[in-house]
Amino acid sequence: MYGLIGSMSAVSGRRDDVIAILTEAVSNMPGCLSYVVAKDSEDENTIWVTEVWDNKESHDASLSLPSVTKAISAARPMISAFGNQVITTPVGGYGLPATKPH
Amino acid sequence: MYGLIGSMSAVSGRRDDVIAILTEAVSNMPGCLSYVVAKDSEDENTIWVTEVWDNKESHDASLSLPSVTKAISAARPMISAFGNQVITTPVGGYGLPATKPH
Repeated sequence: MYGLIGSMSAVSGRRDDVIAILTEAVSNMPGCLSYVVAKDSEDENTIWVTEVWDNKESHDASLSLPSVTKAISAARPMISAFGNQVITTPVGGYGLPATKPH
Repeated sequence: MYGLIGSMSAVSGRRDDVIAILTEAVSNMPGCLSYVVAKDSEDENTIWVTEVWDNKESHDASLSLPSVTKAISAARPMISAFGNQVITTPVGGYGLPATKPH
């Protein structure tokens, strides 16, 4: 599996708009096992995204999906900065589907 | 929802042992929607844990579950440090169950 943990800062007052775009765009991405969008509890502009994919190739391919490129274009003007992104290898736990067909 | 993103460092050579304990302990925690254990891709000792709960109370209560207290006791000697933990409010995305009964 391939995982990403990252944050971004929305332009003041637009966090909910960015979240709405992100959550709508990610419902049908081949190879995506989990994509959780969350508000930071301390900073009113920060959004955390944690992702689990079957492999890196599926993640990279998702960036070319029409729904995703459209979402990136729509959200980008409302994002002021990106935090460091951590790349992980998820190995287990709870709540991940055993497999997901492409 | 209530979310946590955090990391820990295993004692050198014991990361897989810590991961085995963590992944076994988390399979039956009431109110837990997702608990993903992942290896950092750059640091050979670092483990990332990303959690989604229905609410904070469920998370706090989980720390008293026999399976969890046992896991903490077993893993603690093999953990050298904990990173900063981020508290979030997950708001949506993909891969979370709509609801999970207690």
